[in-house]
This record gives sequence, C-alpha cells and structure tokens, in this order.
Amino acid sequence: MIHMILLFVFLQPMKKLYLDDGSSLHPHLGPYFSDGQRRVDYVLAYEIEKPSSIRHRSSRFSGNKFIQRLRRSFNRSSSRAALHPKADPEIAAQEQRTDYHEDDKRFRREEFEENLLEMGLELEKDERSKIPEMGFVKIHAPWNVLCREAEFMKLKMPTKKVLNPSTHHQFNVRQFIHKVTAPLHPKIEPSRPQNVKSLCHPFSREKQHLFDLSDRDRFFDSKTRSSIVYQILKRTRCTKAKYSMEWACYSVFYKYQPIGLIRKYFGEKIGLYFAWLGVYTQMLIPAAIIGVIVFLYGCATVDDNIPSMEICDPRNNITMCPLCDHACSYWELVTACGTARASHLFDNAATVIFSIFMALWAVLFMEHWKRRQMRLNYTWDLTGFGEEDSTHTAHWRCCYISDLLFISFFHFHFMCLCVKLTCTDRMPAYLTTMVTMCFLIVLTFAIVFGVILYRISIKAALHMSNYPAARSNIRATVKTTAAIINLIIIIILDEIYGSIARWLTTLEVPKTDKSFEERLIFKAFILKFANAFTPIVYLAFFRGRLVGRPGKYLYVVGSYRMEECAHAGCLMELCIQLCITMLGKQLIQNNLFEIGIPKLKKLLRRRKSDLDSKQEEELNRTMQRYEKDHFLGPFVGLSPEYMEMIIQFGMVTLFVASFPLAPLFALLNNIIEIRLDAKKFVTELRRPIAVKAKDIGIWYNILRGLSKVAVIVNAFVISFTSDFIPRLVYQHMFSPDGTLHGFVNHSLSYFNVTDFQPGTEPVEPMHLGYKVEICRYKDYREPPWSSTPYQLSKDFWAILAARLAFVIVFQNVVMLMSDFVDWLIPDIPKDISVQMHKEKILMVEVFMKEEQGKRLAAQDNQNQDKCASPSSDNQSPPQPRSRPISHAN
Amino acid sequence: MIHMILLFVFLQPMKKLYLDDGSSLHPHLGPYFSDGQRRVDYVLAYEIEKPSSIRHRSSRFSGNKFIQRLRRSFNRSSSRAALHPKADPEIAAQEQRTDYHEDDKRFRREEFEENLLEMGLELEKDERSKIPEMGFVKIHAPWNVLCREAEFMKLKMPTKKVLNPSTHHQFNVRQFIHKVTAPLHPKIEPSRPQNVKSLCHPFSREKQHLFDLSDRDRFFDSKTRSSIVYQILKRTRCTKAKYSMEWACYSVFYKYQPIGLIRKYFGEKIGLYFAWLGVYTQMLIPAAIIGVIVFLYGCATVDDNIPSMEICDPRNNITMCPLCDHACSYWELVTACGTARASHLFDNAATVIFSIFMALWAVLFMEHWKRRQMRLNYTWDLTGFGEEDSTHTAHWRCCYISDLLFISFFHFHFMCLCVKLTCTDRMPAYLTTMVTMCFLIVLTFAIVFGVILYRISIKAALHMSNYPAARSNIRATVKTTAAIINLIIIIILDEIYGSIARWLTTLEVPKTDKSFEERLIFKAFILKFANAFTPIVYLAFFRGRLVGRPGKYLYVVGSYRMEECAHAGCLMELCIQLCITMLGKQLIQNNLFEIGIPKLKKLLRRRKSDLDSKQEEELNRTMQRYEKDHFLGPFVGLSPEYMEMIIQFGMVTLFVASFPLAPLFALLNNIIEIRLDAKKFVTELRRPIAVKAKDIGIWYNILRGLSKVAVIVNAFVISFTSDFIPRLVYQHMFSPDGTLHGFVNHSLSYFNVTDFQPGTEPVEPMHLGYKVEICRYKDYREPPWSSTPYQLSKDFWAILAARLAFVIVFQNVVMLMSDFVDWLIPDIPKDISVQMHKEKILMVEVFMKEEQGKRLAAQDNQNQDKCASPSSDNQSPPQPRSRPISHAN
Repeated sequence: MIHMILLFVFLQPMKKLYLDDGSSLHPHLGPYFSDGQRRVDYVLAYEIEKPSSIRHRSSRFSGNKFIQRLRRSFNRSSSRAALHPKADPEIAAQEQRTDYHEDDKRFRREEFEENLLEMGLELEKDERSKIPEMGFVKIHAPWNVLCREAEFMKLKMPTKKVLNPSTHHQFNVRQFIHKVTAPLHPKIEPSRPQNVKSLCHPFSREKQHLFDLSDRDRFFDSKTRSSIVYQILKRTRCTKAKYSMEWACYSVFYKYQPIGLIRKYFGEKIGLYFAWLGVYTQMLIPAAIIGVIVFLYGCATVDDNIPSMEICDPRNNITMCPLCDHACSYWELVTACGTARASHLFDNAATVIFSIFMALWAVLFMEHWKRRQMRLNYTWDLTGFGEEDSTHTAHWRCCYISDLLFISFFHFHFMCLCVKLTCTDRMPAYLTTMVTMCFLIVLTFAIVFGVILYRISIKAALHMSNYPAARSNIRATVKTTAAIINLIIIIILDEIYGSIARWLTTLEVPKTDKSFEERLIFKAFILKFANAFTPIVYLAFFRGRLVGRPGKYLYVVGSYRMEECAHAGCLMELCIQLCITMLGKQLIQNNLFEIGIPKLKKLLRRRKSDLDSKQEEELNRTMQRYEKDHFLGPFVGLSPEYMEMIIQFGMVTLFVASFPLAPLFALLNNIIEIRLDAKKFVTELRRPIAVKAKDIGIWYNILRGLSKVAVIVNAFVISFTSDFIPRLVYQHMFSPDGTLHGFVNHSLSYFNVTDFQPGTEPVEPMHLGYKVEICRYKDYREPPWSSTPYQLSKDFWAILAARLAFVIVFQNVVMLMSDFVDWLIPDIPKDISVQMHKEKILMVEVFMKEEQGKRLAAQDNQNQDKCASPSSDNQSPPQPRSRPISHAN
Repeated sequence: MIHMILLFVFLQPMKKLYLDDGSSLHPHLGPYFSDGQRRVDYVLAYEIEKPSSIRHRSSRFSGNKFIQRLRRSFNRSSSRAALHPKADPEIAAQEQRTDYHEDDKRFRREEFEENLLEMGLELEKDERSKIPEMGFVKIHAPWNVLCREAEFMKLKMPTKKVLNPSTHHQFNVRQFIHKVTAPLHPKIEPSRPQNVKSLCHPFSREKQHLFDLSDRDRFFDSKTRSSIVYQILKRTRCTKAKYSMEWACYSVFYKYQPIGLIRKYFGEKIGLYFAWLGVYTQMLIPAAIIGVIVFLYGCATVDDNIPSMEICDPRNNITMCPLCDHACSYWELVTACGTARASHLFDNAATVIFSIFMALWAVLFMEHWKRRQMRLNYTWDLTGFGEEDSTHTAHWRCCYISDLLFISFFHFHFMCLCVKLTCTDRMPAYLTTMVTMCFLIVLTFAIVFGVILYRISIKAALHMSNYPAARSNIRATVKTTAAIINLIIIIILDEIYGSIARWLTTLEVPKTDKSFEERLIFKAFILKFANAFTPIVYLAFFRGRLVGRPGKYLYVVGSYRMEECAHAGCLMELCIQLCITMLGKQLIQNNLFEIGIPKLKKLLRRRKSDLDSKQEEELNRTMQRYEKDHFLGPFVGLSPEYMEMIIQFGMVTLFVASFPLAPLFALLNNIIEIRLDAKKFVTELRRPIAVKAKDIGIWYNILRGLSKVAVIVNAFVISFTSDFIPRLVYQHMFSPDGTLHGFVNHSLSYFNVTDFQPGTEPVEPMHLGYKVEICRYKDYREPPWSSTPYQLSKDFWAILAARLAFVIVFQNVVMLMSDFVDWLIPDIPKDISVQMHKEKILMVEVFMKEEQGKRLAAQDNQNQDKCASPSSDNQSPPQPRSRPISHAN
C-alpha cells in the first residue's frame, strides 16, 4: 500500500478545463467517464516502460531478493498498522528513481487498483492515449464515498441555515472602504450574495437533513472531491475557474487578488501564500512612501547640513593622511565633498525616526497578517481545523520507510524496523549536518574575505600601475567589479546551498513530511541568509573600523593594509551594495530562474518525446487536457517563493536605517512578483495538490525572528555606522554654540608625519603642492603633543558610551513599543469574532428546534402507545414534566 | 431569563458529601430527591426576605415603573436573541444589591423555574429547611437532557475502545522516575489501571453505540453533570473525593499533589492553578539549591577577595570624605570592612553566572509549564476544547445589561440598549482609568520618596542629637524603621489598590466575564507591581547615585543632602530590603489575610444568624450538608492567589542578581502555600463552580513579560549596582599585574578639603585624630591637581562604556539563549503527541469497521431485494464494483 503509489509515475491532477463547476458536458474534453455520467475526479498517469530502460534502471537492487521480500513483508505489516502516508509530487518525482522490475510493477499496480476499488472508488483505464507508452487511469468518487470521507475529515459543509451578517452602523467604515476600493477588486460575479454566508458544520451522515443537499453534484465542490480522493491515497482534480486568467496577468497589478478563487483552485496552502504576498506588498506601500519622504527630506536638507558644508568649504583647507601605504598620498578633505553630501541623503535625523517606524511597521505587518489569516480561516471555514487535524496530517514521509530500510541494512539491526530510530542512529546524520553547516558558513565568510582581498590587491596593483587612465578609474573599477563578483557568488551559492540543505535533511531521515519541510527550510534559511547578508554586515560594521591608525596600521596577508572608507564613505558603500544586491538578485532570479529555466525545461521535456513540430501541432489539437499537462514542470513546493520573499524582507527591515529606499525597491519587485508567480503556477507548472493549511507555518516564526533581529541591527547601524551619535554628542557636550559648527574638525585627530613607519610614507609627499607636517585622520585619539600620543581620547570613550546607551535605549524602547502594539491589536478581528459567536448561537438554536420537534413527535408516539397499552409508564429515561414540582406555598 | 438568575441569592453547589460517585444512598444526607431515585445535581438557595428589608433595599428603583417595563421588554428581546449569560458567584454576590420588589421577585422566580422545567430539568423544592427564611430548590438533570447538552458542548466522552499505551523501551526513564518518586505520590487507589486510557470522542446521540454506556449513572461523572446543569444557566454539584483531605494537609508537603482529583472536585481552572503552583514550586528546588551554592561560594571566597582584603587592611590608611554635611566627619575606609566582606557574599563572579542561569530558568519554567499543561489537557480530554469553545464561554457578564441600563439612563439615549456602547460612551471610563492609574503610580513614587525623606531627616536629627547612645544606633534604627514602614505601606496599599482596580474595571463596563477578569487583573497587576517594586528599584538604581560630589552635593527639599551608601553598601541594603519584603509580605499575607480574615468572616456570618452555641451544636448534627455550607465564605476567584505568586516570581527573577537566596525563600513559602490554599478551598470557602479552562490565561502572558523584563533588570543590576564591571575593567585595562591589587585605590577619587562649600565642612575635622587635607570618595573623577579638577575622568567614560556594552551583550545573549531553549523544547511532549496520533488512527479504524459492517449489511439487503425484483439495478448512487475496470492489456 505504501509503495503502490510509487508505481504511478505521474500523479497528475486535471487542470485548465476552463469549465465552471457543473457546466455542460464536453464529451471530447472529458471531465466525465466514457458513460458521460460519472465525473472524473482524478487522473493517474503511469509509464509503460521500454524493456531497455528497465534493465538499466533497476540494476541497483536487481537480484537482491532479500530486500524485496523484506519490503513486501514490511508492506503487509504496515498496512495493518494503518499508516496512511501521502505522497507529494516532489517526493514522487524523486521516487521515480526507486525502481522495480516491470512485471513486479504491474503486479503491484493491479493490487493498488484493487485496493482503490475496495475503498469504493470507481476507475476507468485509458492506455491507448496519443502519448506513446503512457497509460491513464481516471478515477470517480461516488456519493457514498464522498460522504464517508467527508465525515472522517470532519469537513465543514454548508448547512441549510444561512447567516445574514447584520449591517451595523459601525461597519460603515468598512463599506466605505469597500466602495472606494471597488475598482481595485477583480471582476468576479459572486456566485451568491456577498453578505450571505451559509452556516457550516462538520459533515455527518447521520445529520444529512441539516445540510443543503438540494444539488448533490455541487454539494462537494471539485476541490473537496479532489482532496477526498487524495485522502484515499491519491491526488486531486478540480475544474479551473475561468476568471483566474485575469489574475495571472501583469496588466492588473493594481487590483486586489481573487484570493477566494485562488484557494478554490490551488487549495488553502497556496491561497495563503498569495494572500501573504498580497498583504506584504500592500504593507510595503506606506513603508515605501515614508522611505521616499525620508530620502526627499535628505535631498532637501543637504544644503543646510553643516558638516558637509564644512567639508565642502575649501577655506577650511584640511589635509588628510593617505588612505593606503606608499602609493597613496595626502589628500584634501574638500575632495570628499560629493560623498559627504550624498551620505547625508541616507544619514540624517529622519533616518532614525524611519528605522523606529520600520521596526513598528514589521510588528504591524505581522499583526495585520495574523488578522488577515484569521479572517481567511473564518471565510474558508478552517476555524475548527487545528491541532488535532495537524497531527493527523503529519503523515509519515513515504520515503521514510525505504530510508529506514536503507539505514538499518547498513547497521545490521533489522529489529529496529518496527520501532523508531534511536539517538545513536541519528547521531551521525546530525553530526554531518552540524559540521557541514559550520563549514558552509565559514566558506561564506572566506569568500567574502576573498572578495575583500581581491579589492585590496587590485587597488594596490592599479595604484602601482603607470597608466594615469587606470589610476583615475581605480575606485569605480574596483567597486563595480567587486559588487558584481559578490552578486554572482551569492546567486551561485544560493543554488548550491539549497541542494546541500536538501541533501542534509534527507540524511536526517525526518519522520513526517511536515518535519522534513521544516528542517529543510530551517537549514536553507540559515545558509542563504548568511550568504546574502555576510558582505552587507561586513560593510556595515567592520569595513573601515579595523584599519588601525596612521603609523600603526593593521596588515593582512603580509603587507596588505585593510581597506579604509573615504570620509563618511562607508555608509555610501553600504547603500550601493544593498542596492546592487536587491536589484540584481531580484532581476536575475526573477528573469532567469523563475521564467527562463521553467520554459527551458518544458521545451526539453517536449523534445524528449521525439515529435517534430508538425506532429506536435496535430497533437495539440487532439490531445486530451491531461495529456497536454504532462509536458508541464512539476510543482516543487512553495519554499523557494517564500525564501526569496523572506530574504527580501530581511533587506527591507535589517538595514533600513542605511537605505530608506529599500521598501520602494521591494514594492516594485513584488508587484511584478505576484503576477509572475501567478502566471508560473497557472501556465508553467502542473497543477499542485490542494493542501489544507491554516497558517504559513515556520515562515511566520522566521519573520518574527527577523523583525526582532532587525531592531538590534538597526540600533547598531544608527549608532555605529552613521555619524548620528557623534554629532549629537558634539552638539550637547563640546559645541560652543550648540550647533554642529566645528564638528568636522572635532572628529578628526592629528598625526605627525614624522611618526610614519619607514616604508609606509607616501612616495609623492609634495602631491598637494606644499610640504605636509601634520595630517588628519577620522578617529578620536590624543594628538601627537599630548602626554599619551595617539591613545584613544576621553571623547572616544564618552562617544562610545553614548553609542552603547543609544543601542540599549533604542532596542528596549522599540521592543516595548512592538510588544505594546502586539498587545493592543487583537489577533481576531472584532467583526469576525462577533460573527463566530453569532454562528455558534444560531447553530445551537437550530439543534434545539430539531430537538424540540423530535420530543414532540416522541410524546405523540408515547401518547399513542399509551392508548394502546396504558401500563408502559415506568420506562426509562424518565420523561421531563412527568413529575411536576410542588409549589409548597 | 437574564435577570432570573439574580433572584437566587445563593447559587450554591453541594459539597463535602464524602461520597464516591455512585456509592450507596444516604437518604438523610440526601444527594437524591425525596423519591430516592433521582440524583440531586444541583441546589439553588434563595432568601425569603422579611418585608422590612424589602422596603429598605429596593428603594433605589422603587416606583420607577419605566425602568422596570424597559427591563422586562429588554429581557424578552434578549431571550429571543439567545444570549446565554452565566453568573459567577462573585458577580452574583455583588448583584445581591440589585433589588426588586419581593412579589416581582417571586413572580420572576416562578417564571425562571418554568423555564428550567421547559429545558427538561426536574426540580424539587424544600422551603421548610432548618435555616429560617431560606428556600432551597434541588435540581436533577435526566439522561436525555444530559445527552443533549453533552452533544451541544461537544463533550469528549470515553468510547468503548480502550488504548493501551505501548510500553516502549524509551519510556524506561519515565518509569524509572516514576518508581523513584513513588513515595512522593499521594495515596490514591486508581479507579482503573493507570496505563489504560479510554479513547474519547465528542459525544453524539446518533453514535451512542460507540460509547461505553454500560453504566448510565456513571457515564457522566458528577463534574460533567454539574457543568451541564450550569450550562443551563446554573451551578454545579459534584461529590467530594474522600482522599482530598490528605492533600489539604501540611504534613504531606513533600508529596506530589493529586491533580486529577483536584480537577475532578474543583474543575479544570482550579486544578490548573494547583498544577501550576506545583510546577513552580518544583522548579524552585534547583534554583534554590544553586542559589545556596552561589551564596556558599561567596562565603568560601570571602577571605580570598582582594578588594575587601585591601579595605580591611588598616595599613592602607585611606581617609574618606564625610557622608553627610556638617554633622558627619571624615572616616577611615577600614571601618567599612564588615560591609565590604558581607557584600562579597552577593557580589561575586558566581552571581553573574547565577543570574544568567535564572533567566534561562525562567524560560525553562515557562516551557516546562507549557508541556505540563499540554499533558494535563490530554489527560483531561481538553485537546479539542479551544478557540470556538472559548468564544462560546465568553458570555456577557450578567451585570453588563444593568450597567448598560444605568449608563444609558444618564446619557438619555435608550436606543443604544440593543446595540453596543460606542467609543464616546466608554471614553469617560477609560479616561478615569488612565488618570486614576497615573495618579496612583505617582502616589506610590511619592510615598517611596516620603520614606526617603523620613530616612534623611531622622538621620540628620539623630546626628545632631547630643546623646551618644542615639548616635551609635543611628544606622540600625533608621534602616529598621524605614524598612518596616515600607512593608506596612506596601501591604496596606496592596489592599486599597485591589479595590480601586475592581472599581475602575466596573466603570469600564466590559462586555464579557473573561474581559472583565482580564482587565481587572491587568490593572491590579500594574498597581501592585509598582507598589511592591518601587522601593527596591530605588535602592538598586538610584540610591547613592544622585548624590553629586564633594563640594557640589545634590540637595532636596531645602537643605537635605541625598543619602549615600557606605562603601559597597547599596547592594547590602538592597539585599536587606528584598529579604524583609519577601519574608514580611509572605508571612503577614499568609497568616493574616489568607487564614485569619476568612476565619473571622465565617465567625461573623454564623453570629449573624442569631443562634446561641447550644442551638448551634444541635443544628450542626441535624443540618443538611448544603445548609452547613451556607456559613462558609464565598469563593472570590483565583486572582489573589495568582497575584501573590506572580509578585513573588518577580522578586525571584527580577533582582536575583543581588539576592541569590530569593529562590530558597520562595520555595519555603510555596511549600506552605500549596497546603494553605488547599485547606482554604476545601474547608473555608463554599465550593467554587467547576470552570473549564485550557490554560492559565493572562497570567501566562504576565509571566512571560516578567521574565523578559528580568533579563534587562538583571543586566543593569550586575553592571551598575554591583562592582563587577569596574573590577573587570581594572583587571584588564589598568592593573599592572592583572590582579585586583590596587582596585580600591583606583576606584576612589581625591578631594581637597579646602574645596568644601562654606557651611558643609565637618564640625569635628579632627575626629580621626589628625588633620585631613585630602579625603577620598567613591567615583571616577579628575583629581584636584588636574587641569579640569573634579570633572568625570577618562576612566569613568571607559567604565561606563564597558557597563553599557555588558548590558547589551548580556541582554542579547540571554534573549538568544532563551529563544533557543524555547525553540529546542517542543511544546507538546513527545509521548503525548505520539499517543494523540495513535488515538486518531484507532478512531478512524473504529469508524471504518463500523462502515464496512454497514456496507456488508446493505449489500446483503440489496441481494435479497434483487432476488425479489431483479430490475432495481440503475438506482443511484452507483454501487462500487458495479462497473469493473477493463484491463486493456
């Protein structure tokens, strides 16, 4: 029973029939059996393999009779133990590689079909299809099977009772919003009045009279039928709503998504993904607007900014120490004017407010999503589907058994088969995971360090070169190539890490599909996150900080001095890196991986079936829908989509203090992303299985974690990367007039050029046209003439204390505000909770009325009985009212 | 229907019958109706009021016919809208004051009884009881009513199927623990084998055959019957397990609590409280042990502590500046030797580790409790009882309607009655709450400040006095009196704040009981927390910090200098304050409020019924159990019990860095507390209503909040209150040999006595026997001979930066570790989740078998039909197997 399902190579749901539920019959497109009566609820496809490929594929286990016998016996015992595994297409696709002899296969397939028949399903075979070597089995679930399974699954079905939500006056705001946003809603003719909602109750055959069975064919919609068939160890089928094409279209990017229809077609899990993506995109709008305002504020105030004015004023005439050994010379601060002005765009008082805002925004987003999720749960009647059902769906992975077999085969204790893996069995896998993960993270660091070394050495080499053209373009060249190298490495490693994470998770042999998915996501997230953020973290917190001081520089790998930033330049470089990473990653991943590669794969699959174009066209007209779908790519889960968005969410929240335009970039990307994903799911991939889900699972926890980390990261960016705190301290502790005048001078320390270590002094000391005796550098150190020259000064410690105090205050204030917002906004929207309460009361009333009716009928019966035999009084249970109370006084 | 319930003054469940379920009949103690057949499931009590008291009581609304008519009409409409309010005894007790005319009352009571009869309940009246002017109505719920309500409430009832949990080898540890702790388990003969657990399923009358109905009288246990009757707008009755007396007994303090029985008797909510208290006490054991170890480590290393050795060494001969103006003189550091040695007991390296441990301990406690709660939920079959049920139980408070009436009466918009209160209606109440809360918190601060002023002025006065005896005892006198005053104020304000919180919550008119309780708890918590912790926070973070410096002291209220601590003395005072608060509060509150006052109230109530002792004894023998219970105090909810424990939890976690013995004190208190509460609930109070609850509600969130705040508070205590960071900085930055030698000297600044402001110099400068020119004080400031005398030195800023850095590192590391531990420990214990999964599978199997049986029977029927009429083939739905698939090849 467990392995049976692996015999069908393509477990393919029907899709793209362009039929509404219960529309007229199209015999040649055939959502019905050949008798035209019974619906096709499901189609299984299998390969009739060529003898040659069999021999080749099944070589691994061929002849190993022992294993086969073991499997068969295990198979029998496991079906007795009533394990109900579900295969998903991903695993099924992997399992194509687990091979058996062809006759063994047919034998098992027949047994499997037998079992299906025993479960009450009806089958129709079609092996003479137009695709060579493919057989199809169509499946129909009759009414009684549907009822039985619906009862087991405790499906909430609409009863006859209909709830008219009262139109209270306080809902006016909602109605107003609805009216205003009307043009944004997708054009769907509602099948029933929007305000009317059937009361739903877990289906029970004994209570059939409660349910609205006026149209049995429509009572279970196609998605439900499909999940029911899937529940009996298979996949699902569901007609496609004809309007979903409008949704998967770029031109409607400004419209809300038809989430209800998406859910009806793809199931709750994918519905939730698109709903989440929608909420995220929607929430990005205010963030993007405020980000742009902050940026514009920076632009507007750039001319009033005293520090950059002082830097740009040539009268100040400040001579700076060289930025590198030997090749570089002294330079005048006024040349950093452009960078200083540009960095003001991202480093001003508004940025601090903006990053507090973004921390609260993240919390609001989570809260908003929780409420939206609750609302969807209510609309989709998932409110009862919780705890118990989720333990129910935590089925054993279908490859778990074979993996176990594999492990125990090598460990030589077969007795272990029927019990669980002990810790000792799992230890090697966990150790491997730990070691590999650590190694990969170290590798990521090493690569970032490699890029740094590349930058340093190229810079040094270019500085040494004799061509003045090369030297003038040094900075641009180095920055551009380094950023592009970084980007390419990130994208390549992303793919590699994904595969490694999957491999590691397979090694761990998780017991259930759910735990497999969670472990995989967790690992992939850590690796990809480290990959994407290591260069950014380096730029934000380490670049230009580990340089030592003039006369005592820090050297790496022999004689390379660590790179310095230009005055106020680190923040700018961080901005550039963020910008390139966000844009590049999104553009390349979207275009190449999400559109290009699936198209390529589809093409290849079509080529593989050895048909020339003319034949193909001919086929295209005559092929059944399910035969066409055979050429589409399989659905590999939502993880890559979520992962991409989560990394983006990280970019938006973690370093928003240094790049206020990040939300705007994310917004623009997401508007395209929604329609892109929609198009991909609708046209490029086989229809995924409808999976029920109440929430977005582990992703929510990751989001929470990210928004927590974002607070502390932003605190550090503001206090350590930007000059916000030194400016504040200068203004309140050192400034003679309370303004920033003199700040630049105060932030620069003095260096006596005679203190240069031999060999590090500039080659051209007269580069500026005059002899330099004292040069300046950005640090808070004692001047050469103090008693402790070049030691960290009191100002340094005071400013450090202020920076740290700011981190503590910022972190705790924002955390407190977040918790407060979290606590303030109820998780369940008010109107939903009121409606749920009303439904409950109505339900009790319905039952109560039924009860009364029954009792009256029973009393009538009893009375009739009494007439017949007056001695039947002392029957139990005693009837109410049979012993009235005595009112004593 | 809503007001009816208010007519019965005492809605009193039966208690202390010392009967097991279904034991033999005791006709004179009477848990049965007078016919000896029907059980008494519930007893209502009502007063037959004297005419005099009626006139007096009902004066408020008497004659206001309009209100009465309104109420009646509202009453009718609300019963149609099917609101099912539940009164709780607390509210019912309050509502005694809402009065009506006696005849109106009788009329309504009769209507109410009618309604009860209509619901299928059976009543028996007993107005000629031995208590004058009291009437009792006994209630019996017949079988069919029980079944109906059980179905509505989706009660999980045991089916015939029994689950034998497999005794896997990995449970050995559990069994071992069970065996080892066997003497700790209370002596209960289990009614069924412990390892056997009936499968439970929501009760349904249609599926009665699934349930174990062999003994109808026992099928619904008394608690269930009671909640069922309660569900029909009343209270509950349940026989008392005879062994629960063992539990409510001090001599068994070392034994586990019989949680299952407590829950059976008191219901889930109180069961959870005792379970929580048990888990908390249990978790305190390791904390107490490690706390003692840390303390002992301090004791053992006190002689190796270099700073205190230096202080105690008379050769160092350090002259300190006077601690107060004028009256005080210079003093030698060696006199602070004792304090320095004592403070080492609480301020050493082990304390830091201990407070990290305690932060993790708090997380572990929360996790342990979550798991325990889950286990209890499973054992008590509450796993399905969630979301929906909790919205269901969120009933309207029964005084909500009358409050509404009251509000709308004064606001003159009666139309508002049937809809909800708008924001404008609630605004005044919210504003009042805000203002009052702020005022009370300011009051708390003011009182603490008053105590400080008291200390300062008494100290000054005593210093000025001429009696040397008074002067020598200054410190002890001031400290003791101040601490006792603080304690008394805390205890008095605690009671006042509790009442104010209740009053404020009543003003807000919360809609449901749950929201009433939560708002009340929230307010009471904030006030009581501020009350208990303000003096401690002042001692920990402000005392001795706001003193200014010699020559420039800070003065309050004219000429009082802010109090200073002796060298390393602040930590000691914090310890003493914590010690006194914990011990005093617990002893006084336990003895006085929890034992004394209830006893007093009971006595008063008995006195009120005007009986002399002889008559009383006579009565004691003849009175029915429910008549005796009438003299017990009402149950006022669990909030005070929880509140006490939460404040204690705060003491244990928040300031554990300064007082490692706190867990030990808490443990000792709690061991008594459990039995004290048990005794109180069993013997002193009327039996509380069995309320279903899945968790401890808002308290869990408060605990979480506290454990979060604890991290940051401990970080600040370690880095700012203790000398841990300065010692560390000295050792690594300033010490010549890497030890603490010279630390004391380094931590003291120099002061030139000629810089004293006129009038502040000591009266007796020659007190020490020599002329002082330079005195020392504890601060990091420049010496008098520097260019900027008495300014904060570089060392100060460096140490401040180190302190702040420590706070950031400590907070984030501990938070990360907490989250990691939280993530590492699954919320549902492994064995429980495995068993839940097994139950589920078994349940499906049972249904499946039943299904197959039915189908076979149907087929047989069909075959018989076929024999009779062979043309009945094309009936719908089509039978499975009727159209076998064609194996094409």
